[in-house]
Order: sequence, then C-alpha cells, then structure tokens
Amino acid sequence: MIYLDNSATTIPYDEVLDVFIKVSKDYFGNPSSIHRLGSTAERLLTQARENVANILGCKPSEIIFTSGGSEGNNLAIKGVALFNKRRGNHIITSSIEHPSVEEACKQLEQLGFEVTYVKPDENGIVHIEDIKTAIRNETILVSIMHVNNEVGSVQPITEIGKLLKDYPKILFHVDHVQGVGKVPLHFPSANIDLCTISGHKFHGIKGTGIVYIRSGVELTQLISGGAQENSYRSGTENTAGAVAISKALRMTFENIDNKISKMNIIKRAFIDKLSADLPLITINTPNERSAPHIINFSINGLKSEVFVHMLEEQGIYVSTTSACSSKKQAPSKTLLAMGKNEQSANSSIRISLTHFNRVEDVDIVIKAIRDSLTKLEKIMR
Amino acid sequence: MIYLDNSATTIPYDEVLDVFIKVSKDYFGNPSSIHRLGSTAERLLTQARENVANILGCKPSEIIFTSGGSEGNNLAIKGVALFNKRRGNHIITSSIEHPSVEEACKQLEQLGFEVTYVKPDENGIVHIEDIKTAIRNETILVSIMHVNNEVGSVQPITEIGKLLKDYPKILFHVDHVQGVGKVPLHFPSANIDLCTISGHKFHGIKGTGIVYIRSGVELTQLISGGAQENSYRSGTENTAGAVAISKALRMTFENIDNKISKMNIIKRAFIDKLSADLPLITINTPNERSAPHIINFSINGLKSEVFVHMLEEQGIYVSTTSACSSKKQAPSKTLLAMGKNEQSANSSIRISLTHFNRVEDVDIVIKAIRDSLTKLEKIMR
Repeated sequence: MIYLDNSATTIPYDEVLDVFIKVSKDYFGNPSSIHRLGSTAERLLTQARENVANILGCKPSEIIFTSGGSEGNNLAIKGVALFNKRRGNHIITSSIEHPSVEEACKQLEQLGFEVTYVKPDENGIVHIEDIKTAIRNETILVSIMHVNNEVGSVQPITEIGKLLKDYPKILFHVDHVQGVGKVPLHFPSANIDLCTISGHKFHGIKGTGIVYIRSGVELTQLISGGAQENSYRSGTENTAGAVAISKALRMTFENIDNKISKMNIIKRAFIDKLSADLPLITINTPNERSAPHIINFSINGLKSEVFVHMLEEQGIYVSTTSACSSKKQAPSKTLLAMGKNEQSANSSIRISLTHFNRVEDVDIVIKAIRDSLTKLEKIMR
Repeated sequence: MIYLDNSATTIPYDEVLDVFIKVSKDYFGNPSSIHRLGSTAERLLTQARENVANILGCKPSEIIFTSGGSEGNNLAIKGVALFNKRRGNHIITSSIEHPSVEEACKQLEQLGFEVTYVKPDENGIVHIEDIKTAIRNETILVSIMHVNNEVGSVQPITEIGKLLKDYPKILFHVDHVQGVGKVPLHFPSANIDLCTISGHKFHGIKGTGIVYIRSGVELTQLISGGAQENSYRSGTENTAGAVAISKALRMTFENIDNKISKMNIIKRAFIDKLSADLPLITINTPNERSAPHIINFSINGLKSEVFVHMLEEQGIYVSTTSACSSKKQAPSKTLLAMGKNEQSANSSIRISLTHFNRVEDVDIVIKAIRDSLTKLEKIMR
C-alpha cells in the first residue's frame, strides 16, 4: 500500500496509541475530581498542555484541548463573533477555506453578521491588499487558513498579522490544520489571536484537537458547562486524548527540518515527473509558496473519481479533493476560486504526503498513473 | 483501591480499549474518503451506529456520535433553541440539571430566550404539574435530566413525555448521562425528541458521546462544516471512538438486569448501614424513585472535602458532589433546591457505583467512614 492521502487523515504513531491506552487505563480519574485519582489525571493534562505550549512557543494557559479541527474552527469563529457582536458585525475570510470555517461564517450571516470572502489569485494565494481593502469599521475578525487543504498554497499569515497590528479591534484566527508540522508558524510573532490544530492530521488520533487562544482573548463558549479548559470549553477532559495529541506533536516536531526536506524532495519529484511525461496533466499546486506535502493536478477531460479508483486498484491511495468535500462530488472550490474552469475543477487529483512516504515510491506511482492513463485512452478511443 | 466515584468517570473496559486501538491502527482511513480505506472506516461507523440504535431501540439515522455529554447537551439545547427561535423563545428545564444544561440555558437567556427553572420537591423529583404550569404559547423546548447526578433521584421522564404529546410544538430533551445502563429508558415510547449519553460514564473512553435525535427533528449545528453525522455534527468522524462507545454500550447492556440488581443490593446496604449506625449522617438520596448507583449523604457539621481526603487515605474514592462542580467548592445545587440548608449542602458526600463494585466492600467502607468520624470527633473535641 502506498498511502498518499495524508491531508485527509494519517495513521497514528504507535507510541501515541500506546500512551493513549496507558493513560486511559492507569489514569482514568476525572481531572475535576478532588481526590488523588483526579489530581493525577489533572497533572498529566497540565504536562500535556505545557509540552504543547513549549513546542508551539506560547503559554500553557493559551492551549485549549478540543475534539478536533472542525470544533476548533467553529469555536474560534463563532465564539469570537458572538462575544464581540456589539463591537461590530463584519468578518473577513477567504473563498478557499475549509468547510468548517465557511459554514461557521454562513451560520453567522444568518444571525446578522456580514462576511467578506476574499478571493485568492490564480496560484491560490490571498493578497494582503485585498484583506486591507475589505476592512471596515465594523470588522471584528479575520480568519485565513495557513495552508490550503486542496492545492497546498501557503497564505501570507505573518504579513496579514503585521497588517492587523494596526487594527487592534480586529482579532486574527488562523486555521493551521494543514500547516502544522509542514510549514513553520510562530503564533505570537505572527500576531495570531486564535489558531486551530487537528490531531489526526499529524499521526495523532481522531477526536483530538487544539485551539491556541492568546491570553486576554475572550469568546462565547460553544460547549458550556463545567468551565473546564480555562472556561473556554466545557466537558470532562479527555486526558488520554490530550496526552496523545501532545505526544504526536512532539514526535512530529522531532527533526522536523529533515521531515520537511524529505517531503519537499518527494513533492518536487512528483511535480517534475507529472509535468514532464504526461501531457494530459496540469499541475494546480503553485510552484512558489506551497506546502511540502500537497500536489494537486488535473487530468484533462477525466472525472477524478474514476482515476482515484484506478490507482486504488494498484494499492495507491490519493483523493479527488479534501475528504470533507469529496462525497459531494462538486467541483473543487479552491480551483474554481483560482480561476480554473469547471472541467479542470472536476478532474483534480490530490496527492498528500507525510514524512513516512518514501522517495522510491514516486516512480511506482508515476508508472501507475501513466498505465492508468494509457488504459483510459484505450477505453475512450 | 475501592473506587466509588463512578458518576464522575469509570475505568474503561479492556475490550473497549482493545477495539479502540485496533480500529485506530487498522482502519485509520477518513470515513469521508472515497477510496477503500475510507469506505471500510465508514462501514465500521455504520455498524457502530446500528449496534447503538439496536440497543437503544431507535433507528441508526437517529444516532449522532459526539465528543461527550457536555457537547451533546449543548447541541440539543442550543441547536433546538436557535433553529426554532422564530416559533418561540421559551424553554423549560429544572433547577437541578448538570452545568452543561444550565449554562447552555444561561447562554440562551443572553440571546433573548426565557427559561423557567422548575424546582424539584424535597426528594429531588421534578413534578409534572410544575412543568405543565410552566408551559406557555412560546415554549419550544423542555429539557429534563433522567437521573440526577448528585443525589440519584429519577425524574418522571415517561410521564413528562406523555404530557408533552399534547404539545406537538414543544421538543423534549433528556440528559440521560447518569441514567444509561442504570435506569431503563426507551426513547421513542417516552416521546423523547433528543437524548444525551456520555461514553466514559459506562466504561467507555472519554471524548465519546451520543445524541439521539428523533427523525424529523431539525436543529442548528453547533459544529458546522463537512456535514458529517447526518449533517448534525461536522468534523472527521472519530471511527475508533464510535466503535468504542458502541462496544461499551453493548457490554454494559449484557445481563443488565443482574448488573442493576447488584448495584441495588450494594446501594441498599450502604443506605441501611449509614442510617443505622451513624447518627451524624443524613441520607439525601430519596428512598423511592432513585437510581441504583448513587448514595448521597450529609455529615452534620463537616466540610465534605475533608472527609473525601480522609477516605482517600484509606484507598476509598468518593466525591463531594458532581466532578464538574467539585472544584467550585460551592454548596450542592441539588441539595439546596431540595430545601436542605446550606450546612447540609456543604457537607455532602456522594458514593457512586458500577457493577464492578463488590458487596463485600460495603463493610470495609462503612468501617472506614466510622473510623474517620471517630478520628474527627477526637480532633474537634
């Protein structure tokens, strides 16, 4: 099996599963309980929070454990908007965000908020000038993803953060789900107020996530109740899940430069060979300012589902678009926003990498792609 | 160790942890992916949903997997209220609900909703007549817990459901978190529209939960995005978590009558011995209509924290109140609502059982309680 759908989900590290089981079994107490079983669990939670904060370069109190990326994005966006609704009702985001950002914004529109969806350029990059132009007196939040989940374009987060320094009323949220462990981002120096991470995208387990909430930022709880997680997110803390995501983050950040280099080499090899050998293929991932792990291309005239299944028969797993959108069978939102035509947006394939992928596999995959294309050409003739 | 804080959390079944690991490792695909790794994961999710539906006596499409009880209560209450706000702005609940119900209602009050908090009687039981009296033209939701988490009183859910049949505009939500596996409840015949369950209360893992949403009930998503979970709850499905809670539920419902009988025997023994031998102790759990697993009592004149720690030193784990409230060190909300005085509400101890507890342990615990009281009397003299 050659698994190249790592932006949909990754296989958990064995060590992460081991620690999840150990904590679930040996430290099962409710961290809110006042007896020793509670305080031991709470200590593990604190250690996990400190570890995450260390890696991400922020304070432990700024780390909130959640159930995943969609919860994180919803908490950040709806939480900030609802809390600040008296200060303003305008939000700026892009037209290529993950559905959990887009839909959260649409829900807010129904509650009377106004949202500007800034379009990216033909490379899938959002321009700072467009964000600046969109700013109004009523703007309370800018939410821009770090790495686009479909084509891998990297947004100018640090520059946007710099721009927003001049607008202290506006909070800045970044969906970092596809960026973590792939493209470095230092939250405080990028002037980020809220940042979302999902555990299962970097070999953690599903059902775990993190939101960075900068000290002093207030928001309306999405899940209210017992006031756990610094009162930002209620519910019995998933101690084992927190330790697991903390462990996955630490393992991902070990020798991270090597991991990123390796992915870049594989990505480069894919792009070079796809563009050289195969005339039917157009690369959608921009050459500059793209993440090391995503290669998106369109196969002229082909419904991409067919191609996913043809590669699957050869033990190679890729995707048509993001997993969250793949069942809708709609054309790729990001490609349309980049100005590609509908045919191109309907025929896109996404290869997404992790450091576990092997350079040697590139040729196997390229051969499989070529064979599939030959087969298809025969059928179509 | 004698663990008697099972209403705070339970130790997971070994089999549940095993299946969690197996699914996380061998079926790690994103259920939304269109390739085989996705569809295999999706099939497991479907099986888990069918299994849960079978046990609970409802349809698979009515089962939504969540991250836990607090999310479930927030989704049900805020989701229904926000979706139906044009039809009415009044909610009825009780004054002894879990914080995640109470706080969700308080958030809705800030958005313009009106909430009636019906008081229980001196036994911690909410009366149907009081709910009937509270109903207005604008009422859109009644949310009543099944089993109170502090004293174990069982609310007349089926009767309330029967009453609400005459008010088709009003939806009925039940927080069943403390009831599941302890007090039988058939959602459809109790006319329940939404019902919340949490995995870690019946030897599942933390971070897992279920909401039953009766077919046809619409609500505003708390976590919106990729429209997973029948469009009620977005986010990459936690396949392993869903299989784990399904397994925990099945194991809990195996020979459930025996399990309930055993807990009832232990509970009866505790209540009899606590009331017979120990004059300083008042039992707060009602004699009639209480769950088999909760024994709440007050120790006259004693701060309950002290007592929790004294028992802990003898390897016995109990709690002062619900875990979600225990760090606030506030007097028990339920006891105050039952008309107990502040001293009594400040000196309450909760013993909470599971079928793993042993009848033989009752005498050990009673002896430890007696010894602790003697020790305390000496100190206080």
